[in-house]
Amino acid sequence: MIIDLHSHFLPAAWPDLQARFGTPDWPWMRHVDDEHAMLMLGTRDFRPVYDACWNAQRRVAEMDRDGIDIQVISATPILFAYGRPAAQAEYCARIFNDAALEICSHAPTRLRALAQVPLQDTDMACREASRAMASGHVGVQIGNHVGDRGLDDAGIMTFLHHCAQEDIPLLIHPWDMMTNARMGSYMLPWLVSMPAETQLSILSLILSGAFERLPRNLRLCFAHGGGSFPYLLGRVDNAWRNRDIVRVDCPNLPSSYVDRFHVDSAVFDPDALELLVRVMGDERIMLGSDYPFPLGESPVGGLVRSATFLGADARARILGGNAAAFLGLSRNV
Amino acid sequence: MIIDLHSHFLPAAWPDLQARFGTPDWPWMRHVDDEHAMLMLGTRDFRPVYDACWNAQRRVAEMDRDGIDIQVISATPILFAYGRPAAQAEYCARIFNDAALEICSHAPTRLRALAQVPLQDTDMACREASRAMASGHVGVQIGNHVGDRGLDDAGIMTFLHHCAQEDIPLLIHPWDMMTNARMGSYMLPWLVSMPAETQLSILSLILSGAFERLPRNLRLCFAHGGGSFPYLLGRVDNAWRNRDIVRVDCPNLPSSYVDRFHVDSAVFDPDALELLVRVMGDERIMLGSDYPFPLGESPVGGLVRSATFLGADARARILGGNAAAFLGLSRNV
Repeated sequence: MIIDLHSHFLPAAWPDLQARFGTPDWPWMRHVDDEHAMLMLGTRDFRPVYDACWNAQRRVAEMDRDGIDIQVISATPILFAYGRPAAQAEYCARIFNDAALEICSHAPTRLRALAQVPLQDTDMACREASRAMASGHVGVQIGNHVGDRGLDDAGIMTFLHHCAQEDIPLLIHPWDMMTNARMGSYMLPWLVSMPAETQLSILSLILSGAFERLPRNLRLCFAHGGGSFPYLLGRVDNAWRNRDIVRVDCPNLPSSYVDRFHVDSAVFDPDALELLVRVMGDERIMLGSDYPFPLGESPVGGLVRSATFLGADARARILGGNAAAFLGLSRNV
Repeated sequence: MIIDLHSHFLPAAWPDLQARFGTPDWPWMRHVDDEHAMLMLGTRDFRPVYDACWNAQRRVAEMDRDGIDIQVISATPILFAYGRPAAQAEYCARIFNDAALEICSHAPTRLRALAQVPLQDTDMACREASRAMASGHVGVQIGNHVGDRGLDDAGIMTFLHHCAQEDIPLLIHPWDMMTNARMGSYMLPWLVSMPAETQLSILSLILSGAFERLPRNLRLCFAHGGGSFPYLLGRVDNAWRNRDIVRVDCPNLPSSYVDRFHVDSAVFDPDALELLVRVMGDERIMLGSDYPFPLGESPVGGLVRSATFLGADARARILGGNAAAFLGLSRNV
């Protein structure tokens, strides 16, 4: 069974959130023709998209073409609304969580969904995560931070404990990237800061000692092959060994925590994938494509299928076995 | 011949720059005992250091211990003073460039120096680079940006052309890192943003088309194994293929430009080094340790010497042959 854990959706339309809340720059979709649209932020073009985002039939046809059995769909992070009042983010989450299930309902054996939650409010986030799971979601996608609060923030840690307790797997997606004036062109925030955000978030759990306090049954997956984490782990271990201020809250070598989380396979290069497998182990990597966004993999799964260094068992684990276990899909599908 | 291209120095003392210029937060050194000191920024502890920074005898003893023939010393980037008035940075550069040569004079066959320049002023930077080379430096170290100006900035490009014309090799060191409120502890700017800055700077030369305009004889080396660049190059190539806004100024696939620069070997992990060799080729990697700073390699060269995947010729190139050619030392030593 081939499962793509990291793919995105957009409903064909959604309520006018700007009009509803009277606040600017909400995402909306400007349809160009039947198959193409521009995802907008207020008056600004954000990203060109096509109908695989909202049309289950088109999506399944492309999954058939690429040999994918199940795609797990999740929202694009600009819909998280973590910077808005929590009630607005909760409203938004419900709209998109229900819309995700509606898309999945057209191909229930092929499409599954991860919910989003209003992570800026711990109680609301726990409530929406539980509601979404009860209504058919197979897990939750969260952003890697809420403003200045990282994953080791007390409120977010409470949410992570809730997910562990309720057996809710989490995909952690970078968003709202650190940036500077030298990154205005060429999608540099996506190429530089997005992977740095993911590395930062993994380190925030390791170096703060958060993994020491989180239950071992918590299931976390970081997007985009762990960002820049796998290549820089040696640098982190070396810093931990040599500076007291690096290890003050982290009792064990940083690399000893790689068994506490998963990553997806979206690294787009066989040598990078090989390093990823060496760092994480093939039992902690799951096929993730970022489909159908422009920076996604096409054909989905091409990198893992063609990776000559992988044995058949390891390849099967990465292509689907690990995700089936991560999502608890083994008996349901 | 074993050459460590990336190591740092601090003179035992230097003039009181705060008093001279009447501006705060200049670096100075608070000596704790004969062998230990705290590098200070104004009233703030910046980094513990020890006498290998300023004592050539101690340094050579450690080089003998580690089997290093030549170390190339350069300033710590907090001394660049790029954010100060250019005349102050020029004054500062002259002090430290002359101090570097003074340290080298105690072990002239073992120590060589890279100069710093007031990069915020192109004319001054070119002048100081040429002065430093004439006085005995073997190259120049620059930071990866000047405020909002990246390496593809017109003034910095003029400086790079000057260096190509005068055959001055350049080590590019990340500094003044992008950061956010989630990075206040655990040296996270050094672990996350420093490698991201280096990746950003390499991409700024590739994606802006700067490498198309720079002469091929320009010799550039990026510190810390290219930062996060090697692991993320597949992501960049994929983005270039799929988004017009990524390739608008860059006519060729990003990975086709890896033959335009070198990197050092400071990645602290054999698997990361193996990826680095696959991405860059063993002819474009040079031993770099970050010695004697706390995040440096100890023993210097240990990673490259113990890398079982390297053949003898490749290992010799990385340990010294590439650096000898890069620095033009072949006939001088």
